[in-house]
Amino acid sequence: MTNKIYFTPGPSELYPTVPAHMATALANKIGSISHRSQQFKDIYAHAVHGLRELLQLPANWDILFVSSANEVWERAIQNNVEHESFHLVNGSFSKRFYEIALELGRKATKHEVPLGQGFQVAEIGVPATAELLAVVQNETSSGVSLAVEAIQQLRAKVNPETLIYVDAVSAAPYPNFDFNQIDSVYFSVQKGFGLPAGLGIWLVNDRCVAKAEALQARGFSIGSYHSIPALLSKARAYQNPETPNVLAIYLLGKVVEEMNHHGIAAIREETEAKAKLVYDYLARSQNFAAAMLEPAYQSQTTIIANTRVPSAEVIKNLAPFDMVVGSGYGSNKETQIRIANFPAHSLVQMQALVYKLEELFG
Amino acid sequence: MTNKIYFTPGPSELYPTVPAHMATALANKIGSISHRSQQFKDIYAHAVHGLRELLQLPANWDILFVSSANEVWERAIQNNVEHESFHLVNGSFSKRFYEIALELGRKATKHEVPLGQGFQVAEIGVPATAELLAVVQNETSSGVSLAVEAIQQLRAKVNPETLIYVDAVSAAPYPNFDFNQIDSVYFSVQKGFGLPAGLGIWLVNDRCVAKAEALQARGFSIGSYHSIPALLSKARAYQNPETPNVLAIYLLGKVVEEMNHHGIAAIREETEAKAKLVYDYLARSQNFAAAMLEPAYQSQTTIIANTRVPSAEVIKNLAPFDMVVGSGYGSNKETQIRIANFPAHSLVQMQALVYKLEELFG
Repeated sequence: MTNKIYFTPGPSELYPTVPAHMATALANKIGSISHRSQQFKDIYAHAVHGLRELLQLPANWDILFVSSANEVWERAIQNNVEHESFHLVNGSFSKRFYEIALELGRKATKHEVPLGQGFQVAEIGVPATAELLAVVQNETSSGVSLAVEAIQQLRAKVNPETLIYVDAVSAAPYPNFDFNQIDSVYFSVQKGFGLPAGLGIWLVNDRCVAKAEALQARGFSIGSYHSIPALLSKARAYQNPETPNVLAIYLLGKVVEEMNHHGIAAIREETEAKAKLVYDYLARSQNFAAAMLEPAYQSQTTIIANTRVPSAEVIKNLAPFDMVVGSGYGSNKETQIRIANFPAHSLVQMQALVYKLEELFG
Repeated sequence: MTNKIYFTPGPSELYPTVPAHMATALANKIGSISHRSQQFKDIYAHAVHGLRELLQLPANWDILFVSSANEVWERAIQNNVEHESFHLVNGSFSKRFYEIALELGRKATKHEVPLGQGFQVAEIGVPATAELLAVVQNETSSGVSLAVEAIQQLRAKVNPETLIYVDAVSAAPYPNFDFNQIDSVYFSVQKGFGLPAGLGIWLVNDRCVAKAEALQARGFSIGSYHSIPALLSKARAYQNPETPNVLAIYLLGKVVEEMNHHGIAAIREETEAKAKLVYDYLARSQNFAAAMLEPAYQSQTTIIANTRVPSAEVIKNLAPFDMVVGSGYGSNKETQIRIANFPAHSLVQMQALVYKLEELFG
C-alpha cells in the first residue's frame, strides 16, 4: 500500500476512481466476457460515445483502439503514406515517428529545431509531395507545446491531399482542437486519461480512411489485422479485430463518463489554473526555472523545469512526503525535472507539491 | 457482482487469485510507475523468469511481450518471411495466419483439411522454399488438436532453414513441447493463463532472431518498434520499446508464480483428468457428442461437442446455475458448444458443469 502521488509524465497518477471501477469490473467478471458479446459491444460503445462527446468529435471522424501510441506511428505510415512523410521534430517523440517512417521504407523529411525549442509556423516549408505531416502538440520529452491556433495554420502550408497527424499523447483531453483543420489525432491512456497503460487511441477522419482504402485497392500492402479498414469494419460494430484490452476499454468508458459529468470546459480551466500555480512558482524559485520561458510554447500538461539541484536529489527529498516527480528526459535527466499536470491531479495536490518544493528548495 | 463461472474458450474464467493481485497492484500504484524504472524491470523479470521455469524454456529462447496473438501473426511474417510461408489449415485461426501472410504481400501456401479434421503428418508436403511453417496446436474454432509428438515430426518434413511456428493460443501452458524441434511458440494470456486480455506472448529461439537480423541487415523492412531486434534489445533489459500493459505483466508474473508453486506436472495431469470427465460424459450423453471422436486429435483444453439442442438453449438453461459455456464457432454456432478446460477451471467446477449438463439434457 502506498500513498504516493505520481506527478510523473506517464504512466502517471491514475484517475481517482480507477481502483473502484476495476474492482467493480472484476466483481462483474468483465475480464471473462466474450469480445463478440452484446455486453462487450455495450462497453465499447459507452467508451466511444463518451469520447466523442468529451472531444466534441465531428461525425466524419472515427475512433480506433490500438495497443499504444507507438503502434499508431507504424499504422499511420503503413495506411496513409505510400512514398513520403514530413515531420516537425523538436524532441525524442517527434523524432521517433520520423525514424519509424524510414524503418518502414518511406522517404521521410523533417523540419527540425533543437530540443526545447518551439516552431515558428512561418518558417516551416512542407514538400508538396508529403502525404502526411506529423506534428506533436506537446513534446513529453521537452515540455514544449504548439498552440492549437498554430496547428490550424499548418493547413495553409500543405498540399490539399496531405493528411495532418497531431500527436496529443501527453496533452489530450486538454487541447481544444479544430478537427476541421487536421486529419488524425492520437494518444495513449496512461497520461491525460489517468488509466493504466495498454491502450492507444487513434482518431481518424474520412480522408485518412479514403487514403488507406485507395492504397489497398491498388494492391499496396497496408498491414493486416490493424489496417484502418480492418479496424474500422469492427469498430463500427463496437468491436476490435483481435481480443482487445477489454478492461482498459471498460475503464476508459467509466473515466470519460466522469470527465463528461465534470465538463471538458472545467477540465481545461482547471488544467490552466494548476499550470499557472507551477509556472508562477518556477518564476520565483531560487533553484528551478521553467525550461521554456515563452508563454506561447509553455506546456500546460507536462511542465519542465531546469534545476540547479540534481533531479535525483529532488526526487529523493520529495519521497518522504509521498510525492513523485519525473527526472528530465534523455540527456537532460539530471538537469531537469518534469511535472505532469493531468486531470487526475487535483488543484489541492498540485498546490501541496508547489508548497513542498518551495519549502525544500526555495 | 456475479457468481458466473466462464467455461468459454477465451476470454475465459480468470485465475482465482487475479482480483486480489489486481487490488494489491492498484494499492501499490503499479499502474503509475515508470516503465523504465527498476521497480518495473523487477516486475518484468519476475514474469519472464517464472514463464521460463513453467514452460521449461531452453536458454536459446527469448520471451517477447506484444499486444495479442493477432500481432504475432503479423510480426512473424514481417520478421521471418521474405518470400514464402506455409500453413497447416484446419480452422478459422490457422486460416487467418495464412491470410495475413497474403495481406503482407508474401506468397503463402497451405495444406488444408476440412474444419474439424486433424492432420496426418505423413500426408503433408512442405515446399522446400517455405521459410516458415505455421501449425496450430489446438484450433479454438474446432477443438482439434495436433499431438506434440506429431509436431515434432514436422521437423523432418522441412528444409533445415525453415522456422516452425506453433500456435498455442488456447493450449498453453498445457502442451509439453520439445523446444528443440520447433522455433517459435505464441499465445495470449486470456485463455490458459486466466488473465484479462491485452497481452500476447511470443517465444522465439535464436534462429528466429538471426533470420530477422539477416533480413534487416540486407535493408529489408521488418517493421519498426515491434521488430524482433527492437523487442529483444529492450526485453533483455526487462522492458518493452513502448509503454506496455504494465498491469498485465504484473498479473502474469503473479499467476505464473502460483502455477510454478502448484507445478506444471500437476497442471497437466489435472487438465487431462478434467478433460476425461467431460469426454466421458459426452460419450454417454443423449444430446451431446464429442465433435472429434478420435482420441489422438481430441483437444484437452477446448472441448467441442455437437449438440442436438441449439447452443443458445443450452446457454440459456445453464444461466440460472451461473455456468457459461461457449457457442460453436462461425457456421457451427448453433450446432456445437465449446467448453474450455484451463488451469483456472477447478475439477470441482468441471464436475459441477458435467452434472448439471447431464441433469438438464441427459
